[in-house]
Amino acid sequence: MIGSLVIVGTGPGKPELMTPATEAVLAKATDLVGYGPYLDRVPPRNGQRRHASDNRVELDRARHALTLAASGRDVVVVSGGDPGVFAMAAAVFEAIEMGDPAWQALDIRVEPGVTAMLAAAAEVGAPLGGDFCAISLSDNLKSWATIERRLKAAAEADFVIALYNPASKARPHQLAQAFDVLRSVKSGATPVLFVRAAGTAEAKVLTTTLAAADASVADMRTLVIVGASTTRTVGRWVYTPRREHGTAS
Amino acid sequence: MIGSLVIVGTGPGKPELMTPATEAVLAKATDLVGYGPYLDRVPPRNGQRRHASDNRVELDRARHALTLAASGRDVVVVSGGDPGVFAMAAAVFEAIEMGDPAWQALDIRVEPGVTAMLAAAAEVGAPLGGDFCAISLSDNLKSWATIERRLKAAAEADFVIALYNPASKARPHQLAQAFDVLRSVKSGATPVLFVRAAGTAEAKVLTTTLAAADASVADMRTLVIVGASTTRTVGRWVYTPRREHGTAS
Repeated sequence: MIGSLVIVGTGPGKPELMTPATEAVLAKATDLVGYGPYLDRVPPRNGQRRHASDNRVELDRARHALTLAASGRDVVVVSGGDPGVFAMAAAVFEAIEMGDPAWQALDIRVEPGVTAMLAAAAEVGAPLGGDFCAISLSDNLKSWATIERRLKAAAEADFVIALYNPASKARPHQLAQAFDVLRSVKSGATPVLFVRAAGTAEAKVLTTTLAAADASVADMRTLVIVGASTTRTVGRWVYTPRREHGTAS
Repeated sequence: MIGSLVIVGTGPGKPELMTPATEAVLAKATDLVGYGPYLDRVPPRNGQRRHASDNRVELDRARHALTLAASGRDVVVVSGGDPGVFAMAAAVFEAIEMGDPAWQALDIRVEPGVTAMLAAAAEVGAPLGGDFCAISLSDNLKSWATIERRLKAAAEADFVIALYNPASKARPHQLAQAFDVLRSVKSGATPVLFVRAAGTAEAKVLTTTLAAADASVADMRTLVIVGASTTRTVGRWVYTPRREHGTAS
């Protein structure tokens, strides 16, 4: 008996932002594996087993899910947002590459979802309207030097920049350092958005400038968007025009 | 009487990838405005008016939608994918900034959706597992020099690169030029993915390398993903490990 493994994302938080495809996958699973708070977004179903784990053990969690699937279970690995963006999908494929060769014969699938930066952008208008990049500020898995190099390159090439994992208790100073790197290249007038709990009922937006941005505003539930040179404010909205030289009729 | 305007994305194509939030907004609209093929994804409803337009008239379409909303209608502007990523949301805010000041008082909202690169990534594994950027290769609204500068910066800083609008009949040679820019920086062994019609029933994936990539494979429905230095193949899957120095237990 060969089991299956589907890696899904619940979206940013509101049930209405989870896709019907992901909902259908969750309904058919025998086992759900994931970080506790993401599993809590899934309504309980009779006979379905839940395997909640801590946030820092992605590879162990991936191996556990693969072992269950190899034993014939229909397993769903539950991420927040989109499973392929700073979430569980990469950890599962890493576990497959390093693990039992039989795991490659499993029925494995990834279901896309709404990632945090899209929900954050929608709360404030269309700040991602031009070319953009997404950088995780967590240095658990890469060096801070690499992060600084990417921030500088993205600023110099005038990308809009979405910052995932901008701050945590273990890393309170990194966002301030990131702003310093960006200030060395970008204008102080560049719009900066702190969007907390985007795509949930508690969403909260703070719009400021790079010169005035206070890194201590961000926490683990915040997504930070730093505009390009063309990013503009209109009323309560922020957007990046599609043209590189601002608006035009 | 004040109308409303909501800008939504239908997701990549399959109805099961449209969010319930967007579905609910579409059900309540009096008027739908959008590019014909995206409107065709929305089932007809009694009494709901449809205003289909060509793909090249975003600003006119945005003004039309705003004028309808200002006359008291409940208007939904329909994009594919996510409305904030190379789609209609930026055009609407541009039209607001340049248009009737009364438009700023309208009830305006953006609903996020699943953008093409997330659906494309899910078809092949987790290629966006590290820091990544999204670049539109269309030079309708920006210069080719800007596009080349961004490609080079993204390659040098080792981002995974998602290329939107890689080719059209009017621009058949640009993707080949983009690959040349990337080859000047990245290894020829870098995985390159051509994902056509991602997130639809006709999805088709071609996995190759930067050295072997043939730009003529791409058309308007193709999303191209160029890996980072760490992006790897495992079986039929491609993923980018979360660590910058490859896999590790």
